[in-house]
Amino acid sequence: MNANAQNASLVTTETDAYGIPGVVRLTMNRPDAFNALSEGLLDALQAALNDVASSPARVVVIAGAGRAFCAGHDLKEMRAAPSLAYYQALFARCTKLMMTIQRLPQPVIARVHGIATAAGCQLVAMCDLAVAADTARFAVSGVNLGLFCATPSVPLSRNLSRKAALEMLLTGDFIDAAEAKQQGLVNRVVPMDSLDAEVARLATSICAKPVEAVSAGKGLFYRQLEMGIEAAYQLAGQTMACNMMDDSALEGVQAFIDKRPPGWQR
Amino acid sequence: MNANAQNASLVTTETDAYGIPGVVRLTMNRPDAFNALSEGLLDALQAALNDVASSPARVVVIAGAGRAFCAGHDLKEMRAAPSLAYYQALFARCTKLMMTIQRLPQPVIARVHGIATAAGCQLVAMCDLAVAADTARFAVSGVNLGLFCATPSVPLSRNLSRKAALEMLLTGDFIDAAEAKQQGLVNRVVPMDSLDAEVARLATSICAKPVEAVSAGKGLFYRQLEMGIEAAYQLAGQTMACNMMDDSALEGVQAFIDKRPPGWQR
Amino acid sequence: MNANAQNASLVTTETDAYGIPGVVRLTMNRPDAFNALSEGLLDALQAALNDVASSPARVVVIAGAGRAFCAGHDLKEMRAAPSLAYYQALFARCTKLMMTIQRLPQPVIARVHGIATAAGCQLVAMCDLAVAADTARFAVSGVNLGLFCATPSVPLSRNLSRKAALEMLLTGDFIDAAEAKQQGLVNRVVPMDSLDAEVARLATSICAKPVEAVSAGKGLFYRQLEMGIEAAYQLAGQTMACNMMDDSALEGVQAFIDKRPPGWQR
Repeated sequence: MNANAQNASLVTTETDAYGIPGVVRLTMNRPDAFNALSEGLLDALQAALNDVASSPARVVVIAGAGRAFCAGHDLKEMRAAPSLAYYQALFARCTKLMMTIQRLPQPVIARVHGIATAAGCQLVAMCDLAVAADTARFAVSGVNLGLFCATPSVPLSRNLSRKAALEMLLTGDFIDAAEAKQQGLVNRVVPMDSLDAEVARLATSICAKPVEAVSAGKGLFYRQLEMGIEAAYQLAGQTMACNMMDDSALEGVQAFIDKRPPGWQR
Repeated sequence: MNANAQNASLVTTETDAYGIPGVVRLTMNRPDAFNALSEGLLDALQAALNDVASSPARVVVIAGAGRAFCAGHDLKEMRAAPSLAYYQALFARCTKLMMTIQRLPQPVIARVHGIATAAGCQLVAMCDLAVAADTARFAVSGVNLGLFCATPSVPLSRNLSRKAALEMLLTGDFIDAAEAKQQGLVNRVVPMDSLDAEVARLATSICAKPVEAVSAGKGLFYRQLEMGIEAAYQLAGQTMACNMMDDSALEGVQAFIDKRPPGWQR
Repeated sequence: MNANAQNASLVTTETDAYGIPGVVRLTMNRPDAFNALSEGLLDALQAALNDVASSPARVVVIAGAGRAFCAGHDLKEMRAAPSLAYYQALFARCTKLMMTIQRLPQPVIARVHGIATAAGCQLVAMCDLAVAADTARFAVSGVNLGLFCATPSVPLSRNLSRKAALEMLLTGDFIDAAEAKQQGLVNRVVPMDSLDAEVARLATSICAKPVEAVSAGKGLFYRQLEMGIEAAYQLAGQTMACNMMDDSALEGVQAFIDKRPPGWQR
């Protein structure tokens, strides 16, 4: 088995997942390692996302095989190569993956069960939306080993209030799913046996919207967040004016006026 | 009836509203259209706010006539003029209105009942404070028609955590008043028959404060939010030093020391 | 008694506080004035923090003697010197103190009981973490005297959602400890007679982590918050790569792999 095939097996790609056309589910597949993000898994996930980016997929779900969502970096692999250059390259690679999620034209939903720790918790924070089992637990626990979760702190501090984020980062303590919802880290918490149904419900809702609106909207959302409010409004106004000229929006608005379903709605 | 008179009737201006001197209540008055923001209503609201800006009013309340707060843009009007230039101009006009609220020297309270959708939800997010009936519901539902609520996303993402904002924007789903409070979109939720009393209580509290402190404070609040923390502190320190030199502050602090009510307090 | 000795007595410094090596507790000691931040107290607190910065202390606790945490600036002193230059210098001095807390290599925990008002509430907001008694109350009440809490608004608006922050700033109303927790102003709320135990628990947890990770991590956290997400990730990746090269992290990660406690853990 060559490296590509090996990597490929580290992430399972399921199209029309949950029986919904347009939904791609990527499952991290190192269950014995709690889906720790080895170089191989990072590469496989990057490759899978790259494939999705140029595909007609509408929604991406990221999940973990086995008992956990993701336990962060592969510490054995990290420890085996103790050089600054290696660590710089490793975190750059991980950052590229995280930014790919944000830049993907499709919304990405984290499907979280078991634990999501360190870079696994970061993955949840970077996804556009997250649904968690009520038994899921979250931590940025690197500090327990003497390694502050610096890169996870970037999206964590953009999801949670700063004192809550800093407490997690300084103590390494777990928070449960209810706390994660209250803090803004996940959107919905459901019993484990409803987890897929809830993810599917969310994915179905997004798939029912025209792709132009969803993809331009997601891009605008993150770009405007980094701007002052006036520049944000200027970009948003321009985005919305262009979106309104799309056939799908003109038809959607006309259908609303006519009190009928839009033609693009199946 | 000429255009000005028509526009004027689209917004009802009530001074000394709730029997409180200094409170101006602007009521959007297209009840049959759920107060959809037609060009006429946008212009009338802009004109009313411009009038308030240079008036001695102390607090502004924005409300909606009939069964809803505001249902967003007037889709019939929008659909009738399908050109990029028109939509650019329309969103620019709407943005100007929204920024006028933030730049107004007076605090602006949204009084929300029924539904607040799309640009109506944006209006709630842009107001300084918001009080909602417990039956009120909020959505940025443009995406249901293929039109991502891009301009509403600007203040929404500055009020709510990003995953909560993005869920609303991508699904178009309603959230109820309790959720809106928990997410930071509104300040208070009360039964419908207490809505005006609660708005009045908040307005009364603000009217009891010296105008210099309130108006300089509101301006500073939004300016410093867009700065790094050091620049923010520099501006805040300067603002506070100037405010302290106001006669009202010198008297207020002296009265506190003397354990008596300040002279400016009625 | 000379000025230095007088100032020194305004802040009590306790090392190995709560019986925990490395924990420094600074207690504001003007109980009859609800620990109002007179120039003397500001200077004493600044001096104490400067001492801590270059000490081997691991965690700092800021507390108030008597019935309150801190009631803000000393209004009598402020009122006695009514000049713009004086107020500019006073707020600059206070800002310097607040920024010292954020820049301190050690995490700073606010131990809050009674009231925390105006600059006292600001102090809570500026600390990295905060634990409050369930009877504690918080307000930015300057506006009641005609003095908008401009400098407190800087950290308050970076801890709370903006409508919640603005409501406190415009009304001057108190919020209770439960609300403060829900809004993100404090991390934990406990009964008064558990307050020290809870602070000690948090401090113990942080003291158990290697100092390099904690101090580099805290610094990174605030710096990246002021950056766009890409620059934030670049700095975080660099910080984390350097942190991983620390002996403590290499040992911590190795110990994790070996399923044994790290050598640096007592």
